[in-house]
Amino acid sequence: MNEFELIRRYFTRVYSEPTLGVGDDCAILTPTDSALSLATSTDLLVEGRHFFSNVDPYRLGHKALAVNLSDLAAMGARPAGCLLGLALPELDEDWLAAFSAGFHALSQKYHCPLIGGDTTKSPSGITLSVTVMGWVRSPFLTRSAAKVGDEIWVSGELGAASVALQILQGNPDYPAALLALARDALECPEPQVELGLKLANYAHALIDISDGLSQDLGHILTASQVGAQLYSEALPRPEYFASLTRDQQLRAILNGGDDYQLCATAPISVHAQMRALGMHKIGEIKPLDYGYRLDQQGLEPKGFQHF
Amino acid sequence: MNEFELIRRYFTRVYSEPTLGVGDDCAILTPTDSALSLATSTDLLVEGRHFFSNVDPYRLGHKALAVNLSDLAAMGARPAGCLLGLALPELDEDWLAAFSAGFHALSQKYHCPLIGGDTTKSPSGITLSVTVMGWVRSPFLTRSAAKVGDEIWVSGELGAASVALQILQGNPDYPAALLALARDALECPEPQVELGLKLANYAHALIDISDGLSQDLGHILTASQVGAQLYSEALPRPEYFASLTRDQQLRAILNGGDDYQLCATAPISVHAQMRALGMHKIGEIKPLDYGYRLDQQGLEPKGFQHF
Repeated sequence: MNEFELIRRYFTRVYSEPTLGVGDDCAILTPTDSALSLATSTDLLVEGRHFFSNVDPYRLGHKALAVNLSDLAAMGARPAGCLLGLALPELDEDWLAAFSAGFHALSQKYHCPLIGGDTTKSPSGITLSVTVMGWVRSPFLTRSAAKVGDEIWVSGELGAASVALQILQGNPDYPAALLALARDALECPEPQVELGLKLANYAHALIDISDGLSQDLGHILTASQVGAQLYSEALPRPEYFASLTRDQQLRAILNGGDDYQLCATAPISVHAQMRALGMHKIGEIKPLDYGYRLDQQGLEPKGFQHF
Repeated sequence: MNEFELIRRYFTRVYSEPTLGVGDDCAILTPTDSALSLATSTDLLVEGRHFFSNVDPYRLGHKALAVNLSDLAAMGARPAGCLLGLALPELDEDWLAAFSAGFHALSQKYHCPLIGGDTTKSPSGITLSVTVMGWVRSPFLTRSAAKVGDEIWVSGELGAASVALQILQGNPDYPAALLALARDALECPEPQVELGLKLANYAHALIDISDGLSQDLGHILTASQVGAQLYSEALPRPEYFASLTRDQQLRAILNGGDDYQLCATAPISVHAQMRALGMHKIGEIKPLDYGYRLDQQGLEPKGFQHF
């Protein structure tokens, strides 16, 4: 049973509209008298699982908020506020000062004030929970609105975070010299908040790439009941990937995760607008029976497994 | 440095109105075009710290949501939805089925659908994060609006959860036979959601009692810059407390925590209405220089320490 099966089996209930519930980047709540709805998302970050024990706490503070702002970006939502839960084994003031500085810097940049939270002692290891809230207007950008004939776009280079992780985990197949180039992508991802707001005008379906392109685009395909054709040469990647084998490159790009770029599908009629936003075209949406292909080969939606 | 000092030092920033930020039961977000505002709160529950490893998972699912609904109740908010983060050392299907059943039963009872969340593997022990959201109308019930001359009220019996915890922790000073009577209060607290909605019509200040009456009422006094007189004989407690010493009773009632009753201050003009809601009068709000007293003695705001 993987994360998605677990959620489906134990935590999905059908509730009345207009709530958009479990299974998209954010959930949506709509007040009865407003044109605005609330998009919200929560993430748990566990020491030893989502971050190394010796990670720079300023960068951890940044990333804890960044990965959640990325979920708001994937809904085309404007950040409104966030909540932080902190379970800490001890009160280390230097660590707290650096962590909160990194968190607040990103919070200020995207006008997403920390409005509440909870702190507690942890018997072992640091666990963080971050909840973000933002305002969206209907119709909402969901995973389920991709249409056959849509073009598939990503917002930037993929795979760097995965290469940095491989090197930090001691995988000898990756040149250690690349760590200096790739590390920022892993530890300081920039959430695509402004881009998400603009894409809301053009995209049919939108998702952020947190678990790897093949798996996250796979969620769009499943939710929209469509297939896809991707082109390997069109997948944007850092220049320094030239020192990796083709297989290493594609594994990092497709299955790596932690990219926090946006993946959109949009009709051909907005091709020029998507390019003007700096988006990179990587493929097309096909009928369901076409399957999921990279070049001429079938593509397995692999990526980060939460269990 | 305790939890409150930690929050003040690292996580409190002044943000523009109308956001009510860090330091009340819930934070408040207001959409620009609505008479409704969003009240939200988050809690972390850590195995070995907030619950025993062998606790009934159905009851844990209930309590994880109940303690958060209690924060909504303390704002007079109507529940709208919740998010659940689960970090689990392993996938135990029996555990998950029971936990989710307890969570969903309370979620349905208070019309607070689970709309999103996150699940992940934990290197050691279970950590839960629950975020609740509800709708409130301005003016909001806060901790800072108590007025000199207000009567102080609580919604029900205090101290039972603390007695159950003492017995489960093996404290020999408490008769083990009381566990059967006190255990439900610890493991199955009922959030006072409907009462909170009604109190919003009458109360000046409102808080839920999670860390112990003396500490939580102390938050109202500090935020409102007032003092208080409490009467020990007026503090509601279970009948079976008769088998405890007076000191044991008062420690459980004042400092025990995990009660999830509401504590309100309200003007004398609504005395009859407060009684009609089943509230118990326990004292009066006094000027700041009166201090904080139980009968003739000074009262120290002691309670559960998060660190």
